[in-house]
Amino acid sequence: MINLRSNNIGPFFMKHYSNLEIKALDKFFRLNLINSCTGYKSANLIATRSSDGFTNVAVFNSVTHIGSEPPLLGFILRPQTIPRNTYSNLKETGSFTVNHIQKDMIGKAHQTAARYEKEESEFHHTGLEEEYLDDFYAPYVRQSTIKMGCKYVNEYKIAENGTILVIGEIEHLYFEEGIQMPDGWLRLDDADTVAINGLDGYALPSLLDRFHYAKPGKELTSFLYI
Amino acid sequence: MINLRSNNIGPFFMKHYSNLEIKALDKFFRLNLINSCTGYKSANLIATRSSDGFTNVAVFNSVTHIGSEPPLLGFILRPQTIPRNTYSNLKETGSFTVNHIQKDMIGKAHQTAARYEKEESEFHHTGLEEEYLDDFYAPYVRQSTIKMGCKYVNEYKIAENGTILVIGEIEHLYFEEGIQMPDGWLRLDDADTVAINGLDGYALPSLLDRFHYAKPGKELTSFLYI
Repeated sequence: MINLRSNNIGPFFMKHYSNLEIKALDKFFRLNLINSCTGYKSANLIATRSSDGFTNVAVFNSVTHIGSEPPLLGFILRPQTIPRNTYSNLKETGSFTVNHIQKDMIGKAHQTAARYEKEESEFHHTGLEEEYLDDFYAPYVRQSTIKMGCKYVNEYKIAENGTILVIGEIEHLYFEEGIQMPDGWLRLDDADTVAINGLDGYALPSLLDRFHYAKPGKELTSFLYI
Repeated sequence: MINLRSNNIGPFFMKHYSNLEIKALDKFFRLNLINSCTGYKSANLIATRSSDGFTNVAVFNSVTHIGSEPPLLGFILRPQTIPRNTYSNLKETGSFTVNHIQKDMIGKAHQTAARYEKEESEFHHTGLEEEYLDDFYAPYVRQSTIKMGCKYVNEYKIAENGTILVIGEIEHLYFEEGIQMPDGWLRLDDADTVAINGLDGYALPSLLDRFHYAKPGKELTSFLYI
């Protein structure tokens, strides 16, 4: 199939996979393909501490905005067929932190995906450092300059594949003052926050534009400070 | 509070909002802040067609990977207090498409957020073009070079704020052949796919690195082709 882009750079040859072809792929090939085809993902470290004091930190690419009032976020956990320290800790203690992955820590962040035992904190093995703020039980990642302390609110089991959507409410939000615009918005490229491509690709975004509220029949306008 | 980054560029002055302070903020300030604090989001256009033939296309920043086997994705819809053509169309017909927003179409994509009537397709008002592939009912966005045809599978109502997580299965996947690496992974910066910062900021990522599977005690290695 040939696809002509409106910018006239094309034509490009388009590859097509049907559902049956996807299901027949080699497992790792399919993991790479299906994890990357839905677009860039948020890049966060979720940190917890068990009730007996062992800390855990792990990379997540599924943290999503759920709502602003109350301030809610969600993330997806894989099926509980093997022990997941993040899940057991946040259920035990009701608390976890979400910490942006930034340009200078992508290697340390990715290393948290290795399977350490519960007693071996990823904080000890990766160079990421624990930080405790405002008496919050779960540790923050000290290197991260945008971070949130969250309380566990609820979970939804996705019947189709056994994953779990965890919902948390933001109890504390910390960030570098200079990245906030006068209307509240955080300019993430000023903080060197990265985005995740698939399971293992880390990309650094640069702001192209920011638009005012869109209305029918009205030409879109850009914020001027960019 | 002062935060010293490990790269020694700091110190930076850290701003702190508590949950109560967030709840007391002006509504639009809070929308901007809480939508941007969780990190970059995927940037997609979801397109549908009603059973009586009216098309709809709308920008979404919440498309998330749910699973690879079967190939599932999810996205969040706001409360159904006002008519949502995307939702009614995909429920009526069981079909929708997910199309990457790329660098050259960010203005057209954002304009779909304006509130057009059901009979006024965003396709007619934004310069985005409908495309029909392999007899799939819902239209694709012709300009987009990574796109998926999905069938509606299920939905989960988030009791905390009335939003809905819609789950879809990928029936068809199309992309430019050249962006796929030999292990299946799609290199999104080769396709100029963008990421969303908050509700209205569009950013273009560049790949920093891609890492092999992390193991305890083993130094992280990079893929060589970057």
